[in-house]
Formats: sequence, structure tokens, C-alpha cells
Amino acid sequence: MEEKKISKAVIGRLPRYYRYLGELIEEGVERISSNELSVRMKVTASQIRQDLNNFGGFGQQGYGYNVRYLYAEIAKILGIDQQHNLIIIGAGNLGQAIANYTNFERRGFLIKGMFDINPKLIGLVIRGIEIRSVDELESFIKANDIQIAALTIPKTKAPEIADRLVKAGIKAIWNFAHTDLVVPEDVVVENVHLSESLMRLSYRVSSRKLEEEAKKAERN
Amino acid sequence: MEEKKISKAVIGRLPRYYRYLGELIEEGVERISSNELSVRMKVTASQIRQDLNNFGGFGQQGYGYNVRYLYAEIAKILGIDQQHNLIIIGAGNLGQAIANYTNFERRGFLIKGMFDINPKLIGLVIRGIEIRSVDELESFIKANDIQIAALTIPKTKAPEIADRLVKAGIKAIWNFAHTDLVVPEDVVVENVHLSESLMRLSYRVSSRKLEEEAKKAERN
Repeated sequence: MEEKKISKAVIGRLPRYYRYLGELIEEGVERISSNELSVRMKVTASQIRQDLNNFGGFGQQGYGYNVRYLYAEIAKILGIDQQHNLIIIGAGNLGQAIANYTNFERRGFLIKGMFDINPKLIGLVIRGIEIRSVDELESFIKANDIQIAALTIPKTKAPEIADRLVKAGIKAIWNFAHTDLVVPEDVVVENVHLSESLMRLSYRVSSRKLEEEAKKAERN
Repeated sequence: MEEKKISKAVIGRLPRYYRYLGELIEEGVERISSNELSVRMKVTASQIRQDLNNFGGFGQQGYGYNVRYLYAEIAKILGIDQQHNLIIIGAGNLGQAIANYTNFERRGFLIKGMFDINPKLIGLVIRGIEIRSVDELESFIKANDIQIAALTIPKTKAPEIADRLVKAGIKAIWNFAHTDLVVPEDVVVENVHLSESLMRLSYRVSSRKLEEEAKKAERN
């Protein structure tokens, strides 16, 4: 099998293509040209053609893309054509928000268990998913073929739990704890640092204001 | 005031610098060289020097960076040296998780109110923040000098609420709804699309597996 190295930027954009294609399927659209997709997604048609060309000739000149085919191909590339078993460590608000998000299941991510250290939470059931004691973590991972662990715990606890996950054979950590985890090379960590996202928003507001002030000053 | 155009990539990295500098301050570290920071942050020292040079000469050759000074300067650049008043629309698990996250306040983001349409939630108080009816949205924004709105509602409701926010004068939306909002040019939207993040994780796991299989095949 021939594998081209696909740039991180392109990969980063694939989930967005996937989302738009899913919406097109819901609307009953069977084919779409790069120009039409460009209008919807507010990116240039040439960007779309370049991005999708990375995966071989999905489109046909003058005929557009087959929406379902492209949707399925992107699913394969993203690895979401297969089922992934997931656990959530930290059953607070954020953990529960993730457990309640039914969309993940539609994309093949099955939440098999939740874990916490809080005795008040242990034993509760969220959308059919029982909250268990963290003591059961290792045995549960082995018994349930878990591939992905979401970490929704405070940053002080995250390194210790990450170590336990790695020892238990987990190769993918979805990290919401506000710290960078140190893991072996064969373990993949995807960070969601909410306060960093909020700071980027704040930066963009501030720099927008500075630009406007500069423009005003020029005018006067 | 002279303003250099700073690349999006550099801006994207600033919150992480800010986090590490905050940790250094907590540890009582007063000065740090780009080499020491490089070891901690696992990026090259030359990357650090290049990034921080964007903001003028914070460092001194052979003497390192003044941690507090650099921390304060990055705060200014990110606009978090000022207070931002924030509201949360959608008081479900995700909205409550954000309301409970005390770290945001330490960075100057004050959560002033929460809104929902669910009568069971309206009137509840989360960490001192009352959940109000969405009917009160516009009057609350005007009365409380709100700059930022976090949208933690389903994607079907998001466009309508975004329109109302824009009309009420909001210039910054922190969007957790799984859709791209259409807003005027002077409104900034920062998206947190959780399922896209999970798909990127899935991609990285899948492509790692393919690489390993390819290596095995070569060996045999």
C-alpha cells in the first residue's frame, strides 16, 4: 500500500470536511462540486481540490464529488470507520458532558466506562454508563478492550493517572487536564486546553481593538 | 505604536508559554534561559528565542528571561491583563463545567451569568452564578458590560442565539456548538469542536498502526 505523507494542516481540516459531508447526506445531496462546497465551507475551491487530492482522485472533472463515497473515504482515513472503545476518567461536569454527547457514538466512539475517586459519584449511571472507582481502572481496561482514555481530571492528578493508563496498555489519551503529559513515543496525546482556547479568543479581540484604534488615529 | 504582524502559529503557542511561566512563578523561579525553558517545554531553544523575539527584546544574552516580566508581557499581548466579562449560554454539563473552572477567573475572565431555556435549570446557582432565562439575554448583556459569550448549546439552536448576541453588541463568541457560525466581520469566533479533536486523535492512532504494520511487513 502506497502511503503519502499528509500534512498536519490537511489532517486538521478533514474533520470539518467530514462534518459538512454528513450534513449534505442528511439533506439528500448526492454529488457536489468543489465550487459549491467552497461556498458552503467558506474556503476556496482550489484549497478543497488540493486537500482532497491528497487521498487520490475522489472527484471527477465537471461532475463533482460523490458525497457518500467521499464521506466514507474520509472516515477510513480518520480511522472512524472502526469502533473505538473509550473510557472517561473524571466524572465531574466535563466528564459527564462528554458521556452525554451522543454524537461520539455515531462516529464509532463507544463510551464503555467512567471512573472517579469521589464516593458520591461512584455507582451513579450516566446514560447507561456506570461510574466506577479508579481502583478498577486496570482490570476494566483489560476486560473491555479499551483503546482511548479521556482525562477530565485536575492537572495535579493527571500525570499519575496517565502513567497508570500507559502501563495498562492505553495508546491514546484525550487530555483535558491543563498540563502536558509525559508519555512514551508510541502513545498519542490529543490536548484540549480550554483556557488556552479562551486566551486565543481574548488575543483576537484585543488585537482587533488595537487595529481599530490605529485606523482611527490615522484618520484624525 | 509600532505593530508587527505576528503569525497565527506564534499566537497559538503563547498560551502555552504563559502556562509554563505561571508554573515557574509558583516555583519561585525568577530567571530562565531559553535552554532551560526548552528542556521543560520540549521545544527547541531556537524556537523559543524566535517566538519571543516577536515581542521585542525580553531576553538578555547570557542572562536569561525575567520570568515575571515575560509573564506580564505575554498577558498584555493576549489581552488578559484586562478583565473580560463573560456569559455562558447553555447551562448543561458543559456550561456548568466552564462555570466551575476557577482558573478562568485567575486569568481575568469573570463569568457574570448563565442562561438556559430549561425551566428546571433556571434559578439554580452554580458557584454564585445564577442561571437565567434566555429571555433576559439582551437586557443582561447591556446591564453588565459583557464582552464574551460562551455557547454551550446544541448546534440547531446556535445560529439563532449567535444572531441575538451579535445584535446585542457581543464581539467575541466562544463556540462549543458543533457548527460554524455566520457572523459579521467585526465579531470574533473561537471554536472548540470536541468531536473534531477526537477524530484527530483517532487519525493519529490509526496512522500510527498503519506505520507499524508497514514496518513489520518490511522486516518479513
